[in-house]
Amino acid sequence: MHREDLEGTVRGIMENYEAGDVFFTRPDRHFPSRKKVIEIVKDVRTIMFPRYFIDDMAACSNLEYFAGSMLDRVGDALFVQVREALLFRDSETLSFHAAEGEARRITKTFLARIPYLQSMLLKDVQAAFDGDPAAQSKEEIIFCYPGFFAITVYRIAHELYLLRVPLIPRIMTEYAHQGTGVDLNAGAQVGEYFFIDHATGVVIGETTRIGDHVKIYQGVTLGALSTRGGQKLSGVKRHPTIEDNVTIYSNASVLGGETVVGAGSIIAGSAFVTESVPPNSRVSVRGQEVNVRQSAKKHSTSYEI
Amino acid sequence: MHREDLEGTVRGIMENYEAGDVFFTRPDRHFPSRKKVIEIVKDVRTIMFPRYFIDDMAACSNLEYFAGSMLDRVGDALFVQVREALLFRDSETLSFHAAEGEARRITKTFLARIPYLQSMLLKDVQAAFDGDPAAQSKEEIIFCYPGFFAITVYRIAHELYLLRVPLIPRIMTEYAHQGTGVDLNAGAQVGEYFFIDHATGVVIGETTRIGDHVKIYQGVTLGALSTRGGQKLSGVKRHPTIEDNVTIYSNASVLGGETVVGAGSIIAGSAFVTESVPPNSRVSVRGQEVNVRQSAKKHSTSYEI
Amino acid sequence: MHREDLEGTVRGIMENYEAGDVFFTRPDRHFPSRKKVIEIVKDVRTIMFPRYFIDDMAACSNLEYFAGSMLDRVGDALFVQVREALLFRDSETLSFHAAEGEARRITKTFLARIPYLQSMLLKDVQAAFDGDPAAQSKEEIIFCYPGFFAITVYRIAHELYLLRVPLIPRIMTEYAHQGTGVDLNAGAQVGEYFFIDHATGVVIGETTRIGDHVKIYQGVTLGALSTRGGQKLSGVKRHPTIEDNVTIYSNASVLGGETVVGAGSIIAGSAFVTESVPPNSRVSVRGQEVNVRQSAKKHSTSYEI
Amino acid sequence: MHREDLEGTVRGIMENYEAGDVFFTRPDRHFPSRKKVIEIVKDVRTIMFPRYFIDDMAACSNLEYFAGSMLDRVGDALFVQVREALLFRDSETLSFHAAEGEARRITKTFLARIPYLQSMLLKDVQAAFDGDPAAQSKEEIIFCYPGFFAITVYRIAHELYLLRVPLIPRIMTEYAHQGTGVDLNAGAQVGEYFFIDHATGVVIGETTRIGDHVKIYQGVTLGALSTRGGQKLSGVKRHPTIEDNVTIYSNASVLGGETVVGAGSIIAGSAFVTESVPPNSRVSVRGQEVNVRQSAKKHSTSYEI
Amino acid sequence: MHREDLEGTVRGIMENYEAGDVFFTRPDRHFPSRKKVIEIVKDVRTIMFPRYFIDDMAACSNLEYFAGSMLDRVGDALFVQVREALLFRDSETLSFHAAEGEARRITKTFLARIPYLQSMLLKDVQAAFDGDPAAQSKEEIIFCYPGFFAITVYRIAHELYLLRVPLIPRIMTEYAHQGTGVDLNAGAQVGEYFFIDHATGVVIGETTRIGDHVKIYQGVTLGALSTRGGQKLSGVKRHPTIEDNVTIYSNASVLGGETVVGAGSIIAGSAFVTESVPPNSRVSVRGQEVNVRQSAKKHSTSYEI
Amino acid sequence: MHREDLEGTVRGIMENYEAGDVFFTRPDRHFPSRKKVIEIVKDVRTIMFPRYFIDDMAACSNLEYFAGSMLDRVGDALFVQVREALLFRDSETLSFHAAEGEARRITKTFLARIPYLQSMLLKDVQAAFDGDPAAQSKEEIIFCYPGFFAITVYRIAHELYLLRVPLIPRIMTEYAHQGTGVDLNAGAQVGEYFFIDHATGVVIGETTRIGDHVKIYQGVTLGALSTRGGQKLSGVKRHPTIEDNVTIYSNASVLGGETVVGAGSIIAGSAFVTESVPPNSRVSVRGQEVNVRQSAKKHSTSYEI
Repeated sequence: MHREDLEGTVRGIMENYEAGDVFFTRPDRHFPSRKKVIEIVKDVRTIMFPRYFIDDMAACSNLEYFAGSMLDRVGDALFVQVREALLFRDSETLSFHAAEGEARRITKTFLARIPYLQSMLLKDVQAAFDGDPAAQSKEEIIFCYPGFFAITVYRIAHELYLLRVPLIPRIMTEYAHQGTGVDLNAGAQVGEYFFIDHATGVVIGETTRIGDHVKIYQGVTLGALSTRGGQKLSGVKRHPTIEDNVTIYSNASVLGGETVVGAGSIIAGSAFVTESVPPNSRVSVRGQEVNVRQSAKKHSTSYEI
Repeated sequence: MHREDLEGTVRGIMENYEAGDVFFTRPDRHFPSRKKVIEIVKDVRTIMFPRYFIDDMAACSNLEYFAGSMLDRVGDALFVQVREALLFRDSETLSFHAAEGEARRITKTFLARIPYLQSMLLKDVQAAFDGDPAAQSKEEIIFCYPGFFAITVYRIAHELYLLRVPLIPRIMTEYAHQGTGVDLNAGAQVGEYFFIDHATGVVIGETTRIGDHVKIYQGVTLGALSTRGGQKLSGVKRHPTIEDNVTIYSNASVLGGETVVGAGSIIAGSAFVTESVPPNSRVSVRGQEVNVRQSAKKHSTSYEI
Repeated sequence: MHREDLEGTVRGIMENYEAGDVFFTRPDRHFPSRKKVIEIVKDVRTIMFPRYFIDDMAACSNLEYFAGSMLDRVGDALFVQVREALLFRDSETLSFHAAEGEARRITKTFLARIPYLQSMLLKDVQAAFDGDPAAQSKEEIIFCYPGFFAITVYRIAHELYLLRVPLIPRIMTEYAHQGTGVDLNAGAQVGEYFFIDHATGVVIGETTRIGDHVKIYQGVTLGALSTRGGQKLSGVKRHPTIEDNVTIYSNASVLGGETVVGAGSIIAGSAFVTESVPPNSRVSVRGQEVNVRQSAKKHSTSYEI
Repeated sequence: MHREDLEGTVRGIMENYEAGDVFFTRPDRHFPSRKKVIEIVKDVRTIMFPRYFIDDMAACSNLEYFAGSMLDRVGDALFVQVREALLFRDSETLSFHAAEGEARRITKTFLARIPYLQSMLLKDVQAAFDGDPAAQSKEEIIFCYPGFFAITVYRIAHELYLLRVPLIPRIMTEYAHQGTGVDLNAGAQVGEYFFIDHATGVVIGETTRIGDHVKIYQGVTLGALSTRGGQKLSGVKRHPTIEDNVTIYSNASVLGGETVVGAGSIIAGSAFVTESVPPNSRVSVRGQEVNVRQSAKKHSTSYEI
Repeated sequence: MHREDLEGTVRGIMENYEAGDVFFTRPDRHFPSRKKVIEIVKDVRTIMFPRYFIDDMAACSNLEYFAGSMLDRVGDALFVQVREALLFRDSETLSFHAAEGEARRITKTFLARIPYLQSMLLKDVQAAFDGDPAAQSKEEIIFCYPGFFAITVYRIAHELYLLRVPLIPRIMTEYAHQGTGVDLNAGAQVGEYFFIDHATGVVIGETTRIGDHVKIYQGVTLGALSTRGGQKLSGVKRHPTIEDNVTIYSNASVLGGETVVGAGSIIAGSAFVTESVPPNSRVSVRGQEVNVRQSAKKHSTSYEI
Repeated sequence: MHREDLEGTVRGIMENYEAGDVFFTRPDRHFPSRKKVIEIVKDVRTIMFPRYFIDDMAACSNLEYFAGSMLDRVGDALFVQVREALLFRDSETLSFHAAEGEARRITKTFLARIPYLQSMLLKDVQAAFDGDPAAQSKEEIIFCYPGFFAITVYRIAHELYLLRVPLIPRIMTEYAHQGTGVDLNAGAQVGEYFFIDHATGVVIGETTRIGDHVKIYQGVTLGALSTRGGQKLSGVKRHPTIEDNVTIYSNASVLGGETVVGAGSIIAGSAFVTESVPPNSRVSVRGQEVNVRQSAKKHSTSYEI
């Protein structure tokens, strides 16, 4: 491009830079690295399920050295990213030294939780196998199922959310969101034996509580009734509570922070629930009107729907 | 990390490894390679639609040598992956030699079907062009449309499903699922001139049957009524039958193995169908109640929905 | 593979090549490069939001040189892709020389619009921050939010759509579609302060008009009532008009080219709207029938829904 | 960096740009792509020796399709690079159209020579096997020997040199030079059954003539006596003639355009030859003076050599 | 390219394939993977010198897990490559099962030698530091010195040479040869505290024996007097013996299987030695004739040298 | 591998780690990144010679923005690497803060020197063009000549050597050494219009001084007479002085810190010079004995040389 084609644009962009309040004013603030955070997720998954997610089997025939070495790598990498995330959020008040101390504490706590995460995920695998007639084996679920992948990432991210790490849990769950269409907020509380079938289009909000043995299908929203309160609602319980043994079929919505779906209930596909239902309820949508108009092809646009 | 920060975690993980029943107990079992399977899908697509999906045009100016060479590569690569998949499933009973024989037979049968797949997909392109006013050309559909991509992968995977290849059809359809949000099970039977518009959020179950000239929009589920029977339902027809010339608009659900949507029917957006409808039906959802409360801004949260 | 296993298949494929009317008959027609087009999108985004999307901070400490150099690169790359796209569409009538002139004009016009795009996106960031209690900072929105990413890509693609560039706007929006599940057509007209929360499964059609301060949730369709008219409908307004300050909750559908959602209205989750609603309306879905059948487990399949 | 740290440097560089006579004054002149030229070399080598240089055996089990497809790719790629090279050299006088015609002619001629090149290289393999006691097999020579690699690249580049292609032969031989330490100019004329053992440090000048069955070791120079004439010597025969069945041992130099090493001669290691030697000569260096000074350790620096 | 431009060439190539005796006649023979073999070299080097050759320090803060995991990987990878190499050489006589047994035995033996190799290399580092005034630290030698790199690769390859592994030692030393210009044959026997300064252009033949504390400069050849016996000389000692504490300066040659350079000797730069020299010898080249011809510029070409 | 095959080896390696004095005892010491240092070299080269070394011309059509942006990147990247190198060398005494200050000062000084380096290199290009009859254009020299590449890297590294940066100059020159076979120490002092033809095998020591208009061929050593003094010789002038207008032909050696080759002299190929020669000298090697023994084939090994 000729310089005259660029100069005006550069000037306009520079003005926006200077006016905008969402740009870094100080070049010493850094985001954590999205790429590194995703590598950490992958590495933790590989530690928990070796032989599933690496092409080169040579790397893990001796599982103890393998797990130890991978954990070492995860620990060091996570430490750096957590430190960056803390410094990003609290750049005014937090010293580098204090950030390092806090990051070290968080990293150690997280590593110690990995065996627990692993045992939780093994229960989720069992739930998926019991719940899906199309599953040929448990290995297939670990290897292929997007719902299980989304839950794996969520469980990792949730630990860091509990440790009040900024940004990183969100990067993790958005990574899963992008790959699966499941937006399962790291703040949600999810019990054991959880299964999301088909995955696509599921949204589970930050203050949702989910019990044990819950099964959810594609397109389900566990959301807020309204968010027009904006930032004032931050921290308020805005999303529902789903008790044990509930099944929610495809495209159903359960909304509201005080909405409780009682244990053992079944929510039908496309149902729209904004009030609590007692335990063992069957929530159904009413049937559709069916109009049979044989050999009547395309009367008008308005009739077709 | 210091060794003492790692040892306890390593021990916990090792215990889970030993306790868990979903890990490979014998290191000689291998998954087929997800990466290689995806390469096979891409190569078959490139054979069927050369000049669309490779940057380097130089590779395909002579189409006969190009197709021959690509087929050769696909054949050898598929042979290896099928052999691995067979050995993975039947590791107790299948000899390496027998697996090779079976894989060779399957590979040959699959290759011979590629011209048929190609002709089917050309019909799907026609259906998309006829069905989408926004399509500027047929080339654009092949080049860009996620729905067409999902159907392409499905048709490839379905051939391998029919040949009873384990795991690989699932890897293929999950690859399409991840890229498009369409979870079109390799087991479904789909007729010619099929079109999925906008793609995102479509789920089509394993035992679905779909006729010719069917058109489906985003968010449609062709699913099971219930899967609480778990593995006992494996093999049972759990998903609906969609006859010829049916259109199903966005976010509609059609559920149940005995549910038949008769030929020529139109299912409106967001409709929820759990019983059969006769041919040429118009299934609509009833309208919404509209409450006009002008100048009444944000009374309370409960009113807003 | 042995030659005899390949020859029949090659012959069948060659026959399809020759019969098919969707293949390039002249090898001198080229698609624009999907890879390059995506790089252009990423580069424009990096120009507008430096320090967010590159790992190597070293590249942008001096923002003026950085922006100038990036713009230069974007300009040259876009020029080539636009020229290819024009030649692809009008291969019969357009000379190479004329295509170059037209591509140069389009590129200059596009570059000059980047500061405007940037200022629009800064308003979208503000809308997202105001609208989502879970957002911790504006930076997080730019860095992480898939809805904001989809809008960014849309705003870039829309400029090229207005300049009547073929194919490239579609490649861009499909890139966003694949990553976010938002299919926001480059032809739609979208006002300022636009926010899409959770993103997955949103479809917004080509002739949609959206005012200012509109907020949309996952699963929302702004679509056509029917597309059975096929290519005859090309150019007709088929999608709705959404006026200022409207909120549309999850999984709602608004369909039809004459459907207008009046300013200040709220469309409830899962609502299905095919007729216009006046300003400040509240459109709700009716409640579900709730059947409580305690300790009654699995009577029959038909009861479960 | 701060802008003030950069501006002065940028200004200085811009002045050099403007003053320097070795920069492209017109941005429409392009070098051929080094990367593409190297790919062409690799592809031609792979065509001639399939199964040696690609990891993925799947690509070449059917050699006819494989060779045809690879040749097609090489042909198209070479055509583009030759055209660019011609336009680079003759940018003032050559039209794009004329360059395309010439490039097409050259490409066809080159492709037709590949079987001949292949047969020449098979003879070179034989020479290496017969000449090196350490060679375990002929396959090892093709697979591993840097001397054979350098000759392969030379023979490819020489064909293009004969066709008067600018720049590309040099890019090719410098690629081999970098990998092997053999600087074998594309202009040299080399007979059949040629072998360079150990490779490193060999320089063979542009106007050298080498007969059949010649064997050369590391560090040998076949060079010019003096190049102080500079560009005036361009085209003059400046390098020696080596007749059939000559062996030249390590680090020997043979210099001068009129110097002829007669057939069957042997040039000893470190020999320095600036005059012709008749056929069947033995050229030796005289022995060294050996001084034994036992138990005399490090008298002085001057004694040590 | 048009088909008619390719067919003749393809035919010629096919004829060469069929006639040539250096091509694999059976597609089931495979080379070991050059890429994998080089990875093994790099991994062994990383095990011996952690923190030098990986960018990501995170991977090795706990050295025991790190070394264990890397060794595991090296062991499995080497096993496969050795098996392939054995099957390549002895394809007629060796069963797959026997090859696996032999490869396993070789791999175990090799792994057990790594601590020894490591201790040898630490001595080589010491020798380089003591011998090079330009070395700033021992770390710099490990990190940067090409001579040390060549020795590292040689010592690894030599162990496999001793275990009679075909092809792999050659692939390893050619990898070092390419990167450093040192062709140090895996068959040579080299004592401790060995140093090669500047590296480029050194050739050390297969049957060379080198004692302890030997120092060699660039361009040195330890070679054979003649190889005109060809394959008949295979196994014969053709290269010299260099005893302890010998220094050989740049570009010197020592040739012949019976040539012994006695302990403590110094061979001057450019010396040419074909007979044994007793211990503590000083072998020098005689001085040059110096002709001073002031203000006589370029009389004739023959005078200039 | 089984654990028992690894444990002994791991133990042995751990013992070497602990015993060895060349390993980092403190994990907080880091090498500068070889990869980043090489990128800096490439970027500086690209700044000085834009349009030569990048495939994507789009990046540099506006040279001022391009140069500014590249310099910015180089400056920031160099700053980090210099800081790391200083901390590596002086880890005991240098604070992080002091290292940053010093690195910033060095980086600024270096950047300001780039226009000078560029002008020096333009003179080197001229020297190469004047000195090589085979050069077709100056562009070819910049684009292809390994000697020019080695000089480019040397001139960059030399500036950092003068600024007393540890390790990085060595990493740079070893990068050139590996690619060209020229080991031109960053400490050498080289005048203007310098040319190295054919490149391979040249060694020029740390304390060498070279005047203007000097031309050197492959295999030339400008070295030390002896380095047996080891580290005691550090800092002493050990390498020769080459005055203006000297030509040194292939494989010649000039050794010793007090050896001066007077201005205008010519050193013949393979000459071996250990004493000073006055200006305008012609140093030649004496001729070889030529023995003609026609039809006498291979009497004995001893006669052949």
